[in-house]
Amino acid sequence: MTSPKTPELRKDTVLNKWVIFSPARAKRPSDFKSKSPVTNPNPSSKPECPFCIGHEHECAPEIFRVNSTTNTCSNNWKIRVIENLYPALSRNLDFESSPKFENLVTGFGFHDVVIESPLHTVVLSDLDGSQVGDVLLAYKKRVQQLMLNESIQYVQVFKNHGASAGASMNHSHSQMIGLPIVPPSVSARFDSMKKCYDEMGKCGLCEIRCEELLINESRHFFSIAPFAASFPFELWIVPKAHSSHFHELNNDEAVDLGGILKLMLLKLSRQLNDPPYNFMIHSSPFMVDASQLPYAHWFLQIVPQLSGVGGFEIGSGCNINPVFPEDAAKVLREVDV
Amino acid sequence: MTSPKTPELRKDTVLNKWVIFSPARAKRPSDFKSKSPVTNPNPSSKPECPFCIGHEHECAPEIFRVNSTTNTCSNNWKIRVIENLYPALSRNLDFESSPKFENLVTGFGFHDVVIESPLHTVVLSDLDGSQVGDVLLAYKKRVQQLMLNESIQYVQVFKNHGASAGASMNHSHSQMIGLPIVPPSVSARFDSMKKCYDEMGKCGLCEIRCEELLINESRHFFSIAPFAASFPFELWIVPKAHSSHFHELNNDEAVDLGGILKLMLLKLSRQLNDPPYNFMIHSSPFMVDASQLPYAHWFLQIVPQLSGVGGFEIGSGCNINPVFPEDAAKVLREVDV
Repeated sequence: MTSPKTPELRKDTVLNKWVIFSPARAKRPSDFKSKSPVTNPNPSSKPECPFCIGHEHECAPEIFRVNSTTNTCSNNWKIRVIENLYPALSRNLDFESSPKFENLVTGFGFHDVVIESPLHTVVLSDLDGSQVGDVLLAYKKRVQQLMLNESIQYVQVFKNHGASAGASMNHSHSQMIGLPIVPPSVSARFDSMKKCYDEMGKCGLCEIRCEELLINESRHFFSIAPFAASFPFELWIVPKAHSSHFHELNNDEAVDLGGILKLMLLKLSRQLNDPPYNFMIHSSPFMVDASQLPYAHWFLQIVPQLSGVGGFEIGSGCNINPVFPEDAAKVLREVDV
Repeated sequence: MTSPKTPELRKDTVLNKWVIFSPARAKRPSDFKSKSPVTNPNPSSKPECPFCIGHEHECAPEIFRVNSTTNTCSNNWKIRVIENLYPALSRNLDFESSPKFENLVTGFGFHDVVIESPLHTVVLSDLDGSQVGDVLLAYKKRVQQLMLNESIQYVQVFKNHGASAGASMNHSHSQMIGLPIVPPSVSARFDSMKKCYDEMGKCGLCEIRCEELLINESRHFFSIAPFAASFPFELWIVPKAHSSHFHELNNDEAVDLGGILKLMLLKLSRQLNDPPYNFMIHSSPFMVDASQLPYAHWFLQIVPQLSGVGGFEIGSGCNINPVFPEDAAKVLREVDV
């Protein structure tokens, strides 16, 4: 059992948030478990859905596919990137000639889905590191395609795993939304990282590593529980080399990131009873000027969904986290997978 | 049925957020219902809990109570303000002599609970308008007490109704947390309202009223679906007179606000199948300088909890709302209570 602590207020200087760490509201860090685990369908029951191989005609149009190299039959994809059948934004609007106001623009944008496996019963962490790397390279390719559209300013890549994390389909998939605006929270992140850079003379994410918060490291990445994690067992995977945009990832780094991402998902699943989770890639807007590059550093954030938010969080923008990140890091370092 | 619309991106210029309005993801506005209504306990089953009259000794210490004027027996309270038994912040820490860093301060603060009724089966909207006004005056009194502590900079008043909105007790209550910092989202709201004021020469909330978004009005307040509501059926109750701090509310205004708050809660309950909800009072930090007063305008935000958030919202800070506010306003104007 960890030693009793008094509450603390910590500021996340990357995301510009204060977080209350509140041991009075805590169980022991090792006692956290999801009450609504994401149970995989029974492989023997062979459920099928529009994302399954053979059901491609039930989906919205395909953008591209990644074919399997080991299977040479005609329908041999291992990853498909498709349009979302119920897109939040419409790719068919004429953005350039639409009226734009300071607080209103037409809902132009792209909302795509990455089907991570042809098989219904496979989840992302079932894939091996290089296969997860292929999924990451599919994100990269689609982001680079979206970058060619001059009206798209930012792409949010994200994954919802489990219904209570927002997934409406069980079949393992991720999503990305290309936006014609830069979200204010991305601007706030840049402002906060600029402030940090101006004070330290160094990028805050290059300097974020510390032994107590470190969970694992690979050749090109490390995973940490961030000092002011908003959520219990939230973790970040950060490239060791300073890099502004996720789509700068090369093939070697993708395999490496795939391995550490798989490891972190397995550790969270083992420790927290297969919780629903979200992950989000925090990259930079496409248009970054040279003065911003020294503090622009992308990372991947994983948030297991263990408890909802309430009025305090909505109202103040501050979260209450019952688990100190150093305790979460220790538990996740030690859990065996 | 409302006419088909294309998606729009709207900016909330008060809270500084972009919101995607996405009709492709919508049901008809009149079809929204909570799948997990907050069912009142059966009055005949007489459940009891620490917040019930006669159980005061099971609670954390009382701060003050408001007595009933119609019942003259010794234990005759109608509202109690107590300490939270599991406070997020500790009132017993010595904040002034604790070390403070830019990203870390000791978890000093106040976390209090307002028990809105002595009876387990009564919810806030069961009270009459003047009784809801008494609850609001209890908030005001406690906020004014917290203001006397020089280390407290901001108080977040909020209510979680229903387990999925974050309530851990069924007995009707609200909470407030007094913080030794100003939350960044409050600073962002002030920055955004300053920008609006600088452009228009007027307070954005004084000018926010428009017929299409108006739901109701009382003598001193009006309720609207905000132009860029983050959540379906989110609504705001705004004082007509420019006022920086909630605790400026006088007795007459409290009764009036109690009436329109009750009406809005009943309308949401009727229309949306008694949904879990949160409400939050967005007031100003205690220390506001004279230059900020022209654009500092408090309001109360009500958010029915109809769907969770996912990775896109966590990552980008933008919400996807399937219901246009003008449609929500129409439905709420017309629903009979």
